[in-house]
Amino acid sequence: MKILVLNCGSSSIKYQLFDMPAAVVLAKGLIERIGESTSAATQTTDGGELKLERGIGSHTEGMELVSEMLTHPDQGALQSMDEIAACGHRVVHGGERFTGSVLIDASLESVLEEYSDLAPLHNPPNLTGIHEAKKLLPEIPQVGCFDTAFHQTIPQVAYLYALPYSLYEKHKVRRYGFHGTSHKYVTLRAAELLGKPVESVNIITCHLGNGCSMTAVKNGKSVDTSMGLTPLEGLVMGTRTGDFDPAILFYLVRKGYSMDDLDRMVNKQSGLIGISGVSNDLRDLQEKATGGNLRAQLALDIFAYRVKKYIGSYLAVLNGCNAVVFTGGIGENALIMRRRILSDMDSLGLRLDEGRNAATIGVEGEIQQSDSPIKILVIATNEELLIALETHSIARELEALKDTIKDEPEILVR
Amino acid sequence: MKILVLNCGSSSIKYQLFDMPAAVVLAKGLIERIGESTSAATQTTDGGELKLERGIGSHTEGMELVSEMLTHPDQGALQSMDEIAACGHRVVHGGERFTGSVLIDASLESVLEEYSDLAPLHNPPNLTGIHEAKKLLPEIPQVGCFDTAFHQTIPQVAYLYALPYSLYEKHKVRRYGFHGTSHKYVTLRAAELLGKPVESVNIITCHLGNGCSMTAVKNGKSVDTSMGLTPLEGLVMGTRTGDFDPAILFYLVRKGYSMDDLDRMVNKQSGLIGISGVSNDLRDLQEKATGGNLRAQLALDIFAYRVKKYIGSYLAVLNGCNAVVFTGGIGENALIMRRRILSDMDSLGLRLDEGRNAATIGVEGEIQQSDSPIKILVIATNEELLIALETHSIARELEALKDTIKDEPEILVR
Repeated sequence: MKILVLNCGSSSIKYQLFDMPAAVVLAKGLIERIGESTSAATQTTDGGELKLERGIGSHTEGMELVSEMLTHPDQGALQSMDEIAACGHRVVHGGERFTGSVLIDASLESVLEEYSDLAPLHNPPNLTGIHEAKKLLPEIPQVGCFDTAFHQTIPQVAYLYALPYSLYEKHKVRRYGFHGTSHKYVTLRAAELLGKPVESVNIITCHLGNGCSMTAVKNGKSVDTSMGLTPLEGLVMGTRTGDFDPAILFYLVRKGYSMDDLDRMVNKQSGLIGISGVSNDLRDLQEKATGGNLRAQLALDIFAYRVKKYIGSYLAVLNGCNAVVFTGGIGENALIMRRRILSDMDSLGLRLDEGRNAATIGVEGEIQQSDSPIKILVIATNEELLIALETHSIARELEALKDTIKDEPEILVR
Repeated sequence: MKILVLNCGSSSIKYQLFDMPAAVVLAKGLIERIGESTSAATQTTDGGELKLERGIGSHTEGMELVSEMLTHPDQGALQSMDEIAACGHRVVHGGERFTGSVLIDASLESVLEEYSDLAPLHNPPNLTGIHEAKKLLPEIPQVGCFDTAFHQTIPQVAYLYALPYSLYEKHKVRRYGFHGTSHKYVTLRAAELLGKPVESVNIITCHLGNGCSMTAVKNGKSVDTSMGLTPLEGLVMGTRTGDFDPAILFYLVRKGYSMDDLDRMVNKQSGLIGISGVSNDLRDLQEKATGGNLRAQLALDIFAYRVKKYIGSYLAVLNGCNAVVFTGGIGENALIMRRRILSDMDSLGLRLDEGRNAATIGVEGEIQQSDSPIKILVIATNEELLIALETHSIARELEALKDTIKDEPEILVR
């Protein structure tokens, strides 16, 4: 069964075509700079790499290009788009309604539109992707997979802020958390590596990439996570602050800053770039720090310090754990950052093996010392695969349901 | 040597008169509702309790009343105000300039005025107190003791936010921390109880009272603390939120709230009262929770959960510690809250003894099980005593200096 996985941003479409259940990637593509005069599209298949540059004015044109590339006679992966059996969509915000991936029907679309309020930069393009995919592939199931869904098991004690309770009731203000697909994927994989059923896995997952978040996982379920109502809260990121005293905003407004300035500042001009003043890229900063740039060093130190504090915090939440898991571009590759984070944590049961750490770059592995009470795992995340798996599972259920209905036509009459 | 300790708020004057070095409290008083038509004043001395109600229009009149009460013929503690040798003032914000208590001269007053920007509600009345005390007692040393001073040893990695670095340079935006006098006092006392020199004490101090904050103390020095640029950050408090996703403020401004509304909301209508909707008082909430009020229970749970997370976080910062110390009205008395905070933390080395916990209400004591790797201490804080001690020490240095100058009169000529 061929499954198309779509991730639509405001000016981009990322996609992967899977053959399920074998989980073989048949095609992987990206269209960037939609709406600009020269958009760029790339696709990789067994047939090789396809690169196109042309003006793509809208997501409608973008989806037509996806279709054109997937069915390209030489570097394509399909004879016809009809071969696609289901389409899975990454959706950032599912609010409190979506606790797992779901088949998207018209009623759910309107719910999703409601949540656009909570994720104004992300949900609208995600929804556009769903509309466009429906136009292009009207006959197949469209499945929504939410960044927030895995975190819907977080208990009220952890998801409620100490704000007036009415803000939760009236405006849905609470911790939702994001990167749920990644945290769920590495949780499932960690369970396999630890040789435990997922229901008895207690771990701390660190997704460190462009965005960064951490999750406390108890018995396989998210019980706390560092991102909040929005993806601003928590760890230091490339351009985002993570945690800071919210009263700083009142102070800066008194100094003459506008809320729009501040919104931009904390989301786009803070984090690693804000502290260092030179780069939001970790490798860049490591190079500059090695070259003696003190503010680059400081940015790295603060990044690591914040992760360290969250590990401690979640160890308290979980009363210890089986493993700490690193994933995402930084988590999977940045051995120096992992070393910095895990330094001097032996009294909490975390002992990094320097050799194993150095040998585990971009590959899966255990990197703790053999006597470390808590394991330290590196796992490559694969959000697209999890979306494909969940879409496949829903598509199969639907097929089974249709077969049942065929056998019992009276149900259709009702 | 008689030392007057003053703590001036916007509509109140709190004071204690100490006989040093014996640290005997000769008088303890409070004037409330300054500026209202009926202000109230109370004072306790060996002579009994003195209560007055009258209109006190200003801090000038307030300080005159302090003088009148201290020299009251029956319930007073002094024959004359001339007996007071030095005056110590609590000052909330000392910025980066003040790393300890200091003798206040005219140049320092202007520095303090600068910091009023950082603590607009607190520093101005603190400064008024200094002015009034100088008018009333012009000949004696006035000493400033800062809530922020103990935290000036916090390293940059912990005090800098991941905001643009220029905000630190231009607007002094950083973590300062507060309650420093209390955290320092209990650190000194914990060192005595642990039988260690303070320079080798590693502890986590939890000041849980009207305001709440926690400090990671390494080798006797503050290395991180939960309050930030302002006292809003960190733990849940009676009416303050503590930590929350700062982007919630952008979201609520889009919903039509003004920044003034939000400032008031997060400082006055949040925390325990915000969640529960019924009270900001812990004892009240415990009663209501026992009676089945679920939101009262939730407020208590969230309060405890946040403290638990900070303990974990600071254990990671310190790589373990000698003791966790509870102080402040809640920390010293609320055994149910201590139990809630410390439940299920054995894997981190914290094992509460239920019997000892129940027996330690408003008194000093160890409340851990005998096999607990980390000790759990209850210590009554005494900020006024620390201010008296530091004021006494500076006053004695000054006297010694004056004696030197008397011996060498040529210095005076210079």
